[in-house]
Amino acid sequence: MEVIALKKLKVFLAIASSALILGGCGLGNLSSRPSSNNGTQLTGHANNSNYQSVIKHGHYLTSKSRGVDVQQDANQLNLKSFENGLLDLSKKEFPTNKYIFQEGQHISTKTTEHWLDRKSQNSQGLNPSGKETKVPLYLQQMDEQDFLTQHGKHLKLSGMTVGLGINSIYYYKKKKYGPTYKKSISNATVKAEGHKIGAKVLARLRRKPGLKHIPIVIGLYRQGSDDSLVGGNFFAYSVNKGSSIDGWKPIDERNYVFPSNSGDKGKHANDANDFSNFKSRVQNFFPNLSGVTAQAHYINGSLSGMHVNITTQFYSQTEIIAFTQYLQTAAKKYLPSGMPIDITVKSTEGVQSFLARKSGSKSFSAHVFNSY
Amino acid sequence: MEVIALKKLKVFLAIASSALILGGCGLGNLSSRPSSNNGTQLTGHANNSNYQSVIKHGHYLTSKSRGVDVQQDANQLNLKSFENGLLDLSKKEFPTNKYIFQEGQHISTKTTEHWLDRKSQNSQGLNPSGKETKVPLYLQQMDEQDFLTQHGKHLKLSGMTVGLGINSIYYYKKKKYGPTYKKSISNATVKAEGHKIGAKVLARLRRKPGLKHIPIVIGLYRQGSDDSLVGGNFFAYSVNKGSSIDGWKPIDERNYVFPSNSGDKGKHANDANDFSNFKSRVQNFFPNLSGVTAQAHYINGSLSGMHVNITTQFYSQTEIIAFTQYLQTAAKKYLPSGMPIDITVKSTEGVQSFLARKSGSKSFSAHVFNSY
Repeated sequence: MEVIALKKLKVFLAIASSALILGGCGLGNLSSRPSSNNGTQLTGHANNSNYQSVIKHGHYLTSKSRGVDVQQDANQLNLKSFENGLLDLSKKEFPTNKYIFQEGQHISTKTTEHWLDRKSQNSQGLNPSGKETKVPLYLQQMDEQDFLTQHGKHLKLSGMTVGLGINSIYYYKKKKYGPTYKKSISNATVKAEGHKIGAKVLARLRRKPGLKHIPIVIGLYRQGSDDSLVGGNFFAYSVNKGSSIDGWKPIDERNYVFPSNSGDKGKHANDANDFSNFKSRVQNFFPNLSGVTAQAHYINGSLSGMHVNITTQFYSQTEIIAFTQYLQTAAKKYLPSGMPIDITVKSTEGVQSFLARKSGSKSFSAHVFNSY
Repeated sequence: MEVIALKKLKVFLAIASSALILGGCGLGNLSSRPSSNNGTQLTGHANNSNYQSVIKHGHYLTSKSRGVDVQQDANQLNLKSFENGLLDLSKKEFPTNKYIFQEGQHISTKTTEHWLDRKSQNSQGLNPSGKETKVPLYLQQMDEQDFLTQHGKHLKLSGMTVGLGINSIYYYKKKKYGPTYKKSISNATVKAEGHKIGAKVLARLRRKPGLKHIPIVIGLYRQGSDDSLVGGNFFAYSVNKGSSIDGWKPIDERNYVFPSNSGDKGKHANDANDFSNFKSRVQNFFPNLSGVTAQAHYINGSLSGMHVNITTQFYSQTEIIAFTQYLQTAAKKYLPSGMPIDITVKSTEGVQSFLARKSGSKSFSAHVFNSY
């Protein structure tokens, strides 16, 4: 198998053991070069906002545990939101310019499945014993992220983040193929169960080889409801050196959907009003828009970013171009300034155009999807 | 109704007639301002590669004829490709910095429907009389684009482009709900029928009020087959001052799908090989890719742009980020240089990430779609 040395990437050649030995290729090596099957290298990073990741044996190293869930998560947004939130949490503790990202390699699919079980089904189960209809499943999903550092010729595991998704609403059936019932779980219970499960996970991880002394971050995520247009949110985390929790720090992050109910109050109600203004102007300008919604993300009570979704019934290329030009001006004028925002324009045929403003930028860049 | 004056847009106020009178608002006017119901304004243009378009009565002026087709076009790619090709053709004759674009307002939906009929069904029909099973429908779709110029306080119609989509394969049924049969139409016939229909359309347009003296461009498009992963192509056009065709100029544009059949020859076979190399490297690097294809566009025998489509079975956010980082480097290295290329990464959940290199640029910009 051939390994490709990417420009500006350090290329690592691994020996057969878990220790990875730095190969001879320096930075800026452009040429393809043959290598042993144990070749390990890194994806580049275009900027410091993302990690480099590990490529091993010519392939990207996929996660061992990811995709395992108590049941298929009905709300896919919880998955994406969970993974993104966990990555943001990791970036706080393991800066992207010092650490190399690796998909979780220490908690296997089987282990994840066992841990997500009820204790009555499996001695390792982290969910409580009891009847499906009476006792909620609290732990819904988990994900591991590994962080490596380069020491001389070695890549060494130097940190780990584990996310635990705790249900805020428990969905269950009284009989197979029957209707789905739901039961709200109070924030206090979500928190208490999260703390309890987090402590068990940390203790178990410390018993694994190689995980005795590295810092392990545990993040607790409150799952969004199945019918929400936005995922849940991380609400606490803990940075641990030993095998018991070093104390939980709260995370004040919330997601809202705009337009929101008129009964809403507080800071996000004002932002929702601004968004409604943008929405009505856009809808007034262009006929055939069937929906203008946004996901709004709040950190410590302040709006920190938005994903705007516009669905349209028109699909003529010239109309999409004109609409995108209009949005470029309208978004700058009516949407809140000083934060990253992106806008996706979709029709039944898929994504038609896309606008984005990066953090610190004033204008929106735009792209209209095209076809020959 | 309120009209919003956009920054750097000239705002036009129309009087009740079809003549549009330039209003008092100059460039750089940011504030919203009330206006009469007849307010007409322009979308801005971010750069010179696209036209400004007309907004009338607060709404975008949609096309009168667009979306009418002999039958629902089975291949949506023909629609998009046709509209884009027509716009490119228009840009040759009506430069974006001098002309303002307006969706076609002179050929009504009803007229379009009549013209697309067989002559036996409708006296205005441009398709030949005859049995469905024997005589092909040649004219499949048409589209009108209007070009305005600003004269003092007026916006005046100063040019028009009409595209005619001619079938290269005729699909028909022998009985209702029966199987679909197809019949190839030779390039010579496509050309001859296109010339004939184009001449009739021009003569008819000249009889309409306001269209007597403007330059009218007729573009002839050869429809792609229903099962193609790429649309058809424009093959001839004519720029006309009078009511008969001033001569047809050939357009040498072709679209191919990569990877292509190994039996292919010529210039595009070499490009297809390069693409296959890119494809196999990408697929070797990342597991779970289910497809890597491209639409390749040729002008005068040379590759002038590509749309690359990658479908993936993975969907973890961290995997998408790493994959996109990798693509940013691999695309620059393995895909042809010196032309615009974009790459869309899709999963069953929709578009996951997107990379683009503009004409004249060396590097790809990238965006990973996200969710809170």
